[in-house]
Amino acid sequence: MSKVLFFKKPAMKHTLIAFTLGALALPVWAADPPVPYPADYREWHHVKSMVIDQGHPLYEAFGGIHHLYANPQALAGYKAGQFPDGAVIVFDLLEATAADAAITEGSRKVLGVMHKDAEKYASTGGWGFEGFAGGDQTNRVVGANAADACFACHAPQEDHDYVFSRLRD
Amino acid sequence: MSKVLFFKKPAMKHTLIAFTLGALALPVWAADPPVPYPADYREWHHVKSMVIDQGHPLYEAFGGIHHLYANPQALAGYKAGQFPDGAVIVFDLLEATAADAAITEGSRKVLGVMHKDAEKYASTGGWGFEGFAGGDQTNRVVGANAADACFACHAPQEDHDYVFSRLRD
Repeated sequence: MSKVLFFKKPAMKHTLIAFTLGALALPVWAADPPVPYPADYREWHHVKSMVIDQGHPLYEAFGGIHHLYANPQALAGYKAGQFPDGAVIVFDLLEATAADAAITEGSRKVLGVMHKDAEKYASTGGWGFEGFAGGDQTNRVVGANAADACFACHAPQEDHDYVFSRLRD
Repeated sequence: MSKVLFFKKPAMKHTLIAFTLGALALPVWAADPPVPYPADYREWHHVKSMVIDQGHPLYEAFGGIHHLYANPQALAGYKAGQFPDGAVIVFDLLEATAADAAITEGSRKVLGVMHKDAEKYASTGGWGFEGFAGGDQTNRVVGANAADACFACHAPQEDHDYVFSRLRD
């Protein structure tokens, strides 16, 4: 039940349900607070990019060309090696079209988000994880599955506050 | 001689040489004013990216992965289809390393710059062009050759103010 307390305003209805259903096993609606959609991320610092091609072990999930963006708090976090609350990193995955000896960008596949809040997301290293299919802020593909779908792979990066990417010049 | 007048402070020496040498054919030092190095471009808007591979007609000059960045004036220009004076677009070309079904970024090959000033760069569509080898602001690779080395290819883009790239979301 304790996680229900982390819900702020949007959790009112869920809290009522929680009290009603009482003794049931930990329900889906007791997940961590939803990760906010990062409305202005295209104005943030472009950290780096990468193309993941067929044959790569992550192709199924992340095939295409992706760009990482950091808000100012995350940019400070990259430099410090530890990210403050409020740091947000976006993994912007686009289709990669290979033709005529070039790879060009296509439509958006998914917008991945890591949002740092040590208290709200304590169970996943202090990071909230979400994916917005096609960049659509109403189409959340991670939801309550962040621990399995995201954090399990990020956990070995503990020495860099669970972030894979590094800042370059 | 008129172009020499466009030189501001750094051109003092060149102006003196111009008066001394007088009647010689148009000399190299009478080129358009140098394009400023865009010191803070990594904080600008990331417009788009592309990989150019072996076999592409531009591979020799632009092989690798490049990112385009726009300062606020250039971002407005992309939206308007016409760029105001002060607009600067950076073409940031990095080595692209293909291995293990992925393409990752390597070291910087060249930092290409387009700097809009309709008066200063009237002979090349209102744009000053420069390339900084390795991103080194002291290593200019275009200099007085902008008309041949850059503008000749950009000229057909007149309808979009000589800019090839387009803004995406």
